[in-house]
This record gives sequence, C-alpha cells and structure tokens, in this order.
Amino acid sequence: MNFWPLFIVLGAVLVTAGFIAFLISRIRKQPVEEAKIREVQGFIRVGAMAFLKREYKILAVIVVAVAILIGIFLNVQDYFLSGLATAVSFLVGAILSALAGFIGMRAATDGNGRTAQAAKNKGMGGALGIAFAGGTIMGLVVAALGLLGLSTLILVFYSIYGNISVVVTIVTGFGLGAGIIGLFARVGGGIYTKAADVGADLVGKVEKGIPEDDPRNPATIADNVGDNVGDVAGMGADLFESLVVSIIATISLAVIGGMAGFSYNILHLILFPLLVCAGGLIASIVGSFFVRGDKPALKLRVGQYVATGVSALITLGISLILFSNLIPFVVVIIGNIVGLAVGQITEYYTSSSYRHIKYMKKMSSTGSATNVLSGLSTGMLSTALPILVLATAIVTSYLIAGMYGIALAAVGMLSTVGLTIAVDAFGAISDNAGGLAEMGGLDKSVRKITDELDAVGNTTAAIGKGFAIGSAALTSLALFITFIASFYTITGTDITEMLNLANPILIAGLLIGGMLPFLFSSMTIKSVSKAAGDMIKEVRRQFKEKPGIMDGTESPDYAKCVDISTKAALREMIVPGLLAIFAPIAAGLLMGYVGLAGLLAGALVSGILMGLFQSNAGGAWDNTKKSIEADGEKGSEIHAAAVTGDTVGDPFKDTSGPSLNTLIKLMTIVSVIFIPIFALIENGRGILGMF
Amino acid sequence: MNFWPLFIVLGAVLVTAGFIAFLISRIRKQPVEEAKIREVQGFIRVGAMAFLKREYKILAVIVVAVAILIGIFLNVQDYFLSGLATAVSFLVGAILSALAGFIGMRAATDGNGRTAQAAKNKGMGGALGIAFAGGTIMGLVVAALGLLGLSTLILVFYSIYGNISVVVTIVTGFGLGAGIIGLFARVGGGIYTKAADVGADLVGKVEKGIPEDDPRNPATIADNVGDNVGDVAGMGADLFESLVVSIIATISLAVIGGMAGFSYNILHLILFPLLVCAGGLIASIVGSFFVRGDKPALKLRVGQYVATGVSALITLGISLILFSNLIPFVVVIIGNIVGLAVGQITEYYTSSSYRHIKYMKKMSSTGSATNVLSGLSTGMLSTALPILVLATAIVTSYLIAGMYGIALAAVGMLSTVGLTIAVDAFGAISDNAGGLAEMGGLDKSVRKITDELDAVGNTTAAIGKGFAIGSAALTSLALFITFIASFYTITGTDITEMLNLANPILIAGLLIGGMLPFLFSSMTIKSVSKAAGDMIKEVRRQFKEKPGIMDGTESPDYAKCVDISTKAALREMIVPGLLAIFAPIAAGLLMGYVGLAGLLAGALVSGILMGLFQSNAGGAWDNTKKSIEADGEKGSEIHAAAVTGDTVGDPFKDTSGPSLNTLIKLMTIVSVIFIPIFALIENGRGILGMF
Repeated sequence: MNFWPLFIVLGAVLVTAGFIAFLISRIRKQPVEEAKIREVQGFIRVGAMAFLKREYKILAVIVVAVAILIGIFLNVQDYFLSGLATAVSFLVGAILSALAGFIGMRAATDGNGRTAQAAKNKGMGGALGIAFAGGTIMGLVVAALGLLGLSTLILVFYSIYGNISVVVTIVTGFGLGAGIIGLFARVGGGIYTKAADVGADLVGKVEKGIPEDDPRNPATIADNVGDNVGDVAGMGADLFESLVVSIIATISLAVIGGMAGFSYNILHLILFPLLVCAGGLIASIVGSFFVRGDKPALKLRVGQYVATGVSALITLGISLILFSNLIPFVVVIIGNIVGLAVGQITEYYTSSSYRHIKYMKKMSSTGSATNVLSGLSTGMLSTALPILVLATAIVTSYLIAGMYGIALAAVGMLSTVGLTIAVDAFGAISDNAGGLAEMGGLDKSVRKITDELDAVGNTTAAIGKGFAIGSAALTSLALFITFIASFYTITGTDITEMLNLANPILIAGLLIGGMLPFLFSSMTIKSVSKAAGDMIKEVRRQFKEKPGIMDGTESPDYAKCVDISTKAALREMIVPGLLAIFAPIAAGLLMGYVGLAGLLAGALVSGILMGLFQSNAGGAWDNTKKSIEADGEKGSEIHAAAVTGDTVGDPFKDTSGPSLNTLIKLMTIVSVIFIPIFALIENGRGILGMF
Repeated sequence: MNFWPLFIVLGAVLVTAGFIAFLISRIRKQPVEEAKIREVQGFIRVGAMAFLKREYKILAVIVVAVAILIGIFLNVQDYFLSGLATAVSFLVGAILSALAGFIGMRAATDGNGRTAQAAKNKGMGGALGIAFAGGTIMGLVVAALGLLGLSTLILVFYSIYGNISVVVTIVTGFGLGAGIIGLFARVGGGIYTKAADVGADLVGKVEKGIPEDDPRNPATIADNVGDNVGDVAGMGADLFESLVVSIIATISLAVIGGMAGFSYNILHLILFPLLVCAGGLIASIVGSFFVRGDKPALKLRVGQYVATGVSALITLGISLILFSNLIPFVVVIIGNIVGLAVGQITEYYTSSSYRHIKYMKKMSSTGSATNVLSGLSTGMLSTALPILVLATAIVTSYLIAGMYGIALAAVGMLSTVGLTIAVDAFGAISDNAGGLAEMGGLDKSVRKITDELDAVGNTTAAIGKGFAIGSAALTSLALFITFIASFYTITGTDITEMLNLANPILIAGLLIGGMLPFLFSSMTIKSVSKAAGDMIKEVRRQFKEKPGIMDGTESPDYAKCVDISTKAALREMIVPGLLAIFAPIAAGLLMGYVGLAGLLAGALVSGILMGLFQSNAGGAWDNTKKSIEADGEKGSEIHAAAVTGDTVGDPFKDTSGPSLNTLIKLMTIVSVIFIPIFALIENGRGILGMF
C-alpha cells in the first residue's frame, strides 16, 4: 500500500501550525496595560501551569507503568518488538494529548487578560477577536496534533512492518494514550474547577456578601484557574481522544474485511477518515475568519456553519475522487447532522428562551425542593431526543455503509472538532476576562462586554457538552464494534454469535456495566463535595485570621487556595481513573469476553444516558438561576431556591456528567488493547467460564 | 400429563382463605370506641375505596380493549378459540389483581383505626397484633389469589386443549392482566400519595405551622388515603405481578425443551414453582404467628426468618420428592438469599445506624444543596452492591440449572411474598394509626406506640422497595429469556444468534430502551409536581376562605382534597401507563424482534438502576431528616436543609422509583404476548428491516 496521501494530511497540519503561530503572535501583540490585570493574570497562569505540571507528573507514573505492561505482554503474533511499538504509540498518544493541553492552556491564560484589555481599548470586536483566537489555538492544536500523531505513526510503522493490520493494532496504542490523559484531565479538571467554584461562592458570595470575582476572595484565583483546567484542558483532552479514537476505529474496521457496506479499496477506506479530518482542519481555519465583529452569538454560529459547509464540500470531493461514490460523503454528513442536532437539542432543554427553563422558573417559586425536582425531571426528559437522534444515525449509517459507516459517522461528527473546541474554550477565556476586568477594577462598560461574551460562552459550553457526549457515544460504539471484530482477527474465533442477549453471563455484564456510570458519578460528586469542603475551610480561615482582607489592608493568600484545589483534584482523580482502567480488565479476566462485551455495552448505554441527564440538568439549573437574576430577582426567595439547584448542578454539569464520556471511551479502548490477554484465558471464556 | 398436585396448591389456598377469614374476624373484634377515630377512619375508608373504584372503572376500559385485541388477533395456531381463552386468562389476571387490591385495602382501612384503639387499650402488643393482621391479610390475599388463578387456569385449559404448550401461552395472558393493573396501581397510587403528602406538608406544616396529621389540615385525610393506595394497593399489585409472572416464566421455560441444566421431567418442572409457592404460603402463615408482643422491629425480622426457614424446609422436601435431587432446592435458596441480601443492603444505605446517613447529616450542615448532592451520590452508590448480588445470582443459578434456574431463582425470591407484603403493608397501617391517634386526640402514650410502629414501618418500607426492585429484576429477566425462547416455539425461528451485540439495530434498541426509564421517571415526577400544585392551591384556598379552620370553629372540606388527589392521580397515570404498553409494540413493529429485544434489555438494565437509585436516595433523604429530628434539631437550619432533600426524595421513593419495577415487567410481558404479531411482519424483522 502506498500511503503518500498522508503527506497531504501532514501538509494540512503544517498549514495549521503556521496559522496557530499567527494567532499566537496576534494575541501577544495586544499589550496588557493595566498593572493589576497583569498581576492577577500572572497568578492564574502560574496556578494553571502548576496544576498541569503536577497532574502530568502523576500521570507519567501511570503512563510509564502501562507502557511497560504493553511493551512486554502485547507483542502482535511474531512481529519483532511490535509490543514495544505499541508502547511507543501509546506514549506518543499520551504525550501529544498532554502537549495539546499545555499549548492550549498557555494560549488561554495568555488570552484572558488581553481579552479584558482589548474590551477596554477596542470594544466588543477586539475582545471577541482575542478571546476567540485563544480558543482557536486550543481547538486547532488538538485537531492538528491528533492528525500529526496518527499519520506519522502509520507512515513509520508501515515502513517498518509492511503489514497494515499489525500497524492498526500498534496505532490503537495511540488511542489508549489519548484515552488515559483524557479521562484524568476531565476528572481532575472537573473536580478542581468545582471545588474552587463552590468554595469561592459559598464563603465569598453567600457568607461575606462580596461579588463574584472580587479580589478580596482568597479562592477567586483558584476559581479562574479552574475555568481553564476544566473547560479548556479537560474538554480538549476529551475531544482529542474522541477524534483519534474514532479515526482508529474507522481504520480498524476498514482493515477487517467485509465491514463496509459498499464496494471499496482498503487503502482508500483507511485514507478517507484522515483526509476528511484534514479537510475539517482547513475548514475550521476558514470558519474562524467569520467570527469577528460585534454580535458574538451570531458570529460564532456563522463560523460553525461555514466550517461545516466547507468541510462538507471537501468531503464531497474526497469521496468522489477516492470512491467515485457518494456513500461515504452521505455518512459523514449524517455525523455532521448528529453533531448539530444534539447541540440544538441541548440548547432547547437548557436555554431560557424555551419552555423547560420557564417551567423550572415557575417551579422555583415554591422553593428549593421543587426547583431541584424540576431540574432532575428536565434532565431525565432531555435524554429522549438525543437518544432517538443517535439511534437513528446508528441504524441509518449502518444500513448505508455497514459497520464502517457507524465509525465514519463518528468521524464526520468530529471532522470540524477544531472549531467546536474553539467555541467552547472561547467561553472559558471570556469568563476569565470578566473576572480580570472585575479584579482589575476596569470600567463598567468593559465588564458589560465581557459579560456578554461570558453569557454567549455559557450557551456554547452547554452545547459543547452535549456534543462531547454525542461524539463519545458514537466513538465508543465504533470502538465497541472494533472490539468484537478485532477478537476475530486476533484470536481467529468469531465471537459475534456468542454475544447474544440470551446468554446470562452477558446479561450479568450488562447489569454491572450499566452500574459503573452510577458508581463513577457517585465517586466524582463526593470528590467535589470533599474538595469543596477543604476549600471552604481554608477561605473561612483566611477571612478569620486576616481581618484586613475585607477592607483591603491585607492581601489574601491566593496560592494557598490554588494549592488546595490542586491537591484535592489530584488526590481524588486517582480512584475513579483506576476504576476505568481496571474494571474492563477484571471483567475480561473473570467473565471472559462475553461478560466483558456485556459490561462495555451496559456502560455505553447507561454512561450516555447519565451523561446527558447530568450535564443537561446542570445546564438547566444554571440558566434558570441566571434567568431569574436577569429578571432582577437577585436576593429574593425564588433566587435562593434557584441557587440551590445551581449548586447541585455544578458537579453534575462540570464533573460527573462530562467525565462519563471519557469513562466509556477509555473502558472500550482498554478492552480492545488487552484482547490478546483475555484470549489467553481458557480461550477467552474467562475464569468463570472454566466451571 | 396429570396435574393432580395442583389440588395441593388449591388446598393451601383454601387453608389460607380460612386463615384470612380468621384474621378479618380478629380485626373486627377490636371495637373502635373513640367517636372521632371512627369518624376519621370512615373518611379514609370512603376516600380509599372511592379511589379504587374510579381507578378500576378507567382500567376496565383499557382492559376490555386489550382483551378484545387479544381475543381477535392472538389465536394459537389452529387451536379453537385459543385467542379467546388468552383473553379470558388476561381478564382473570386483571380481575384477581384488582380484587386483591380491594380486599387488602379494605383490611388496611379497617385496621388503621383499630390499631390506634388497640394501642390505647392493650399497648404495643395489641397494636402490633392488629396492624400486622391487617398487613397479613393483604399479603396472603395477593399470594393466594395469584396461585388460585394460575392453578385453576392451568387445570381448566389443559382439560380443554390437552396441550401444555398452548396452555402456557394462554396462561401468559394472566400475567399481562396482572401487569397492567400492577403498573397503573403503582403509578396512580404513587402520584396520589405524594400529591397529598406534599400538599399537606407544604401548606399545613410549613406555611401554617400545624403538626403532621392535624385534623385542621384539609389535606390530612387525603394524605392518609394516599398511604393506603400507594403502599398497600400499589405495592400489592406490583408484587402480585412479580409472583405470577415469575411462575409463568418458569413454567414456560420448563415447557420449552432443554432449558433446565439438570435431568428432568417436564411435568415436575411445571409443578415445582407452584408447589414451592404453596409451601411459601403456608410458611408465611407460620411466620406470621411469631410477630407478636413488644419489640416490633425484632419480631418482624423473626417472623420473616421463620417463614423463610419453613419455606426452605418445604422446598427441600418437594425438591427431593419430585427430582430426588437438590439442584432445584439450591436455586430456590439462591433466590431467598437475593431477597434477604437486597433488603439488607437497602437498609445499610438508608438507615441512620450506618455511615451513609451519618455522612448525609454532616453534609446537611452546609445547606440544602450539599444535602441534595449527598443524597444523589448515596443513591447512585447504592446501586453497586445489589447489582453485584443480582449478577452473581443470575450467573450462579444459570450455571446450576440453566435458563430455568434463573426463573426459578425469581420464584424462590418471591415464595414467601405473602409475608413480605404483610411487613410492608403493616407500616402503612401503623402510619395511618398514628394519624388517627393524633386526629382523635388520644393520649401521648398512644402516639408513642404508633410512632414506634411507624418508625419500624419506615425501615421495612425501604427494605420492601429494595425487594420489589430486586424481584422485578429477576422476574423481568426470566420473562425476557422466555421472550427469546418463545419466539422459537411460536415462529420456528431460533433468533438467539441474531440478538448479538454486533447488531447495530440491537444497539439502537438498547439505547432507546435504556432511555425509557429516564423518560418515564421524568413524566411521573412532573405528574407529582403538577398534582401537588393542584393540592397546594386547594389547601391554601380553604384556609383563606374558611378562617375558622385554624381555631376549630369551621371544618375543612376533606372530601374536596381527596377528590383532587384522586382526579390528578387518575389523569396523570394514563400517559406513562400507555407508554409502557405501546413502546414495546411500536418497537417490535418498527425495529423487529432484534430492536425489540435490545429495547427490553436496555430498559431492564436502566430500569433496575434508576429504580434502585431513586428509591434508595429517597429513603436516605427521608431517614436523614428523621435522624436530624431525633437529635432535637427540628426547626434548625440543618433541619431545613434536610427537609429539602426529603421533599425531593418523596416522588423518587414513592412514585418514579417503584413505578419502574412495573414498567420493565409490563413491557416484557407485552412483548411476550404479542410475539405472533411481530412475527407476521417480514418474518419478525420489523418495518425497518425491509430496507
């Protein structure tokens, strides 16, 4: 096979790198004149970078341990050092994901203060330009590094082994590396951001009555750091994983014969998803040019539609050139539509323009309990339409293009992921900019601009979460099919018909797998509570021991609060993270592939549902509170009721809900990687199967 | 085949009928001397009976419509009028379930006032005796009518058709009848009880500051009626369905060859579950004798252990006589253990003696939001152990005795269901007795006795809910296996291998099925909110228009509140109820048996999880509040926080959570019944399958 078209992909990556350099220089050109902003921005950057460094140090231990296991145990048949090659792929995946987080975080913490400054100097247009440039860097870095890593590894290892099916197995290690970083970044970032947020709010806003982002609040820096580690680094690592894993699943299914429901050439099936994503990279750059000027909400939407349109055109061209056929193009479009539809549905259930938030506002007038209940029921209800959209897309893309089609739909959904992340990260940068404007004592007119950007950012963040879950669903499903199909190529046994619903071991697996997202959510919610408790104690202590903080004669100890969030997040992320890695391995060893397949399917179904439920309920509570505030009801009883729901929703929407995406993806890719081990035990039937 | 041993079952039913008559006379012998209690008891009885009558009138329409459909479309092959026979079975199932509810409700509303009176005249021993006699009537009526109906139908239709496999199909109609009544009774009763409860609490206790069960509260009668229609009639109909459906599934799998993992005689396999349950009936009567004297919590437990022990001995005997083999006995014991274990686990997560409620109390000190979050995370966590127990039981009973073994474990779990219901219904009667003692102005010492009974009842109610979910899980699974197996016997196609996880239509079904419990819960929670809203308005109106209520110079209009609860419950139960009936039919028609099987499995998994999560979270919030009250913190801020959680938990534990049991059971039995229809369309592949 001749993989020369991968150099086109690398070319697109190179173009993107140039554009990223341009964006960085554009951000840097905006000076930060206000000394106070420069100072606070420095605190945020130092805090955020310190968190990343400490997180990566811990992850390095886990990653190296897993790499050694892979290197020793996972040699592919008789291919020399192929286990080592898989370990290298794995390390590259982990390192590139970490690097994407690093660069993106750097851009975000460079952009926040400059956005505030630009809002002062140049108004809305200037602020939107800087904030969106910061977000675009994150988005493009994620997409470009994903494509760079995959293309390079395929080229290198194909030149070494000359067998594409071995190369696919090796490259799957890349997905596992991305998956491990993705999970820990989501969970750690999610715990960090909510511990700081709840701590800052409960003591600062509620007990001391000082406004949001007041520099007298010791936790305010930690809160702003949290926006970055959660919404920027966490989201980026999550979607980095989705992107690379969906491509890997597509390539795997291309290599395993008979998976595509149309006539094909294997090489073309392999190249197609990579070229589509390279096109999406360029389309994202094009789209980003349309996000400028005065109306941020409108312009962000225009940018996304332009990117989707350009990407569709490029896909059409690739589809015709490679296959002389529209089928692959149609499937990619199905993926695009799913992405847009899930986002719109999320908005319908979480935006105050529609009836559900209106209902929740009404229910808030009878107190906290009815507010909470209405949020829970809205969250549960909001699972229905996305599930129907996903189910329809799965069946349709399968009927059109076989198993390969399902994986391709996931790729289609993620093809313009660069811009999707940009829109999401832009919100976090704007949120930070607002905080810096407040802390820097800038004029109210500046705050008005950053507030408008922040409000837009809140909507896009909710939509982004819906998108992340939807993409995790399709990606995990594609990977799950790869798991079943790979079993055949690796062990020579076709297990498909064993995996039927009349098999009680499979049902037991389904039940246990379905339970894992509940257990995982319970753990992460408790972690937030514990971490927030630590933070509350510290903030109270500072106010008590330094009475001068309130009148400005003493400085609060920001670093101490940052340190508490960091430590708590790093401590609390370990157990849920290891659960995700070891649950599928334990299931595979004990219950064999039948129980493991059941476990993965159960976790997939309940993970998507619990993810949608929690994220959307959280978003709905958040916007109910904001809408009540916009009505001028701040401080009223109805507002107090809404604050309760909002606080309940905080870990739902930023920790436990979105972490489930990474849980279901990581569990599935761990299962794919360790197939050779499971196959060793009693021909894959597991220890229980010996009875 | 000679079914003469069924006359032993009928004999046990006859003995039970005699014992029930004795219990009724025992209750009646206790006069109600206090005029006020007599009066209020009359209100409750009239309200409860009026609700049942109106509910049954609505259900009669649905039942007759379904019966006509069955009679016309579901003829078994060429057996003359076998469709009509199935319709008759169906009607008998519905009528017997309704009758059980009627008799049990009558006993409960007879027993409540007499329990209060007995507490005054004879102290704890007397009160426990009457309350438990009332509960035992409900429990034994449910178990006895279930066995009476099944045995009689088998005897009658076997004498007509002489073919056991036709008889099994016909008798499955009995399960559908029980299922429809079960679902509507649970949903309607759940909405009724919580609308009244929340309405009475929010206006009476919170706004007006009058105590629980104060006769000045217009909603207080409705609240007491609610305890009966929810905990007595709803629970009874739910477990009536579990009992008969688990027996039907066992018999079906006995008839379908090769389902039992040990050597067997089909007739014996059919007789075994019925004889075991007849033994359980007698064992329940024996156990009930041990519930007497002073220590209600201990005595109830002793009674249950005795019943389980006696039942195990009888089962041992039957197992040896029929099979000369211990295998069926062991499987029944596995079922027994599951029942006890799930109950104990429920207690661990919801009782204030253990660490989870202690943690929730601690979290209540930082406000409503942290109380709510701790309840949600405790509820999610509480799914893990019951799922592991269920999964282990499923795999073990399968390995020991094949598919038949799984169904038999469900039967084992339910063999002493008479006593399980008795213990649960006893709580509702005691709760009512406490209310009557308060309203009748009895001495504080009386109230102390009824309070102790009520506290015990709260624990047993939580355990009962766990048991109901566990039994619904095993029963639905047994029925699900029957669905797959019956497809073969009815259509001649073995679909087992089609139902594999690599089939995307099955995955789509899994996702949609998994979503249904979320949708269903959302609907029922909203229904409670709406109904409670109606009630709140009415109670407020009465207090406003009749200012004399507060000083006792005017009587509140209890009947109006009862009417509002009744109307709201009956109105709101229709849509979720029809969803349960039509979702599987629509899935079967559109997505064929593959999609339908996925749908059922998805609903099974997520229904059990959401049921456990919601019921246990609700129970945990309830006991957190009670434990804070017991600490003398009533009226404090920590108590206010706990009240929020308790109110959120009300529909969770009494409406949406337990209703899911009936949802998953009904959807599965509807699917089994309509197999011949699904098989008509494109050989069972559904409308989508035509593409």
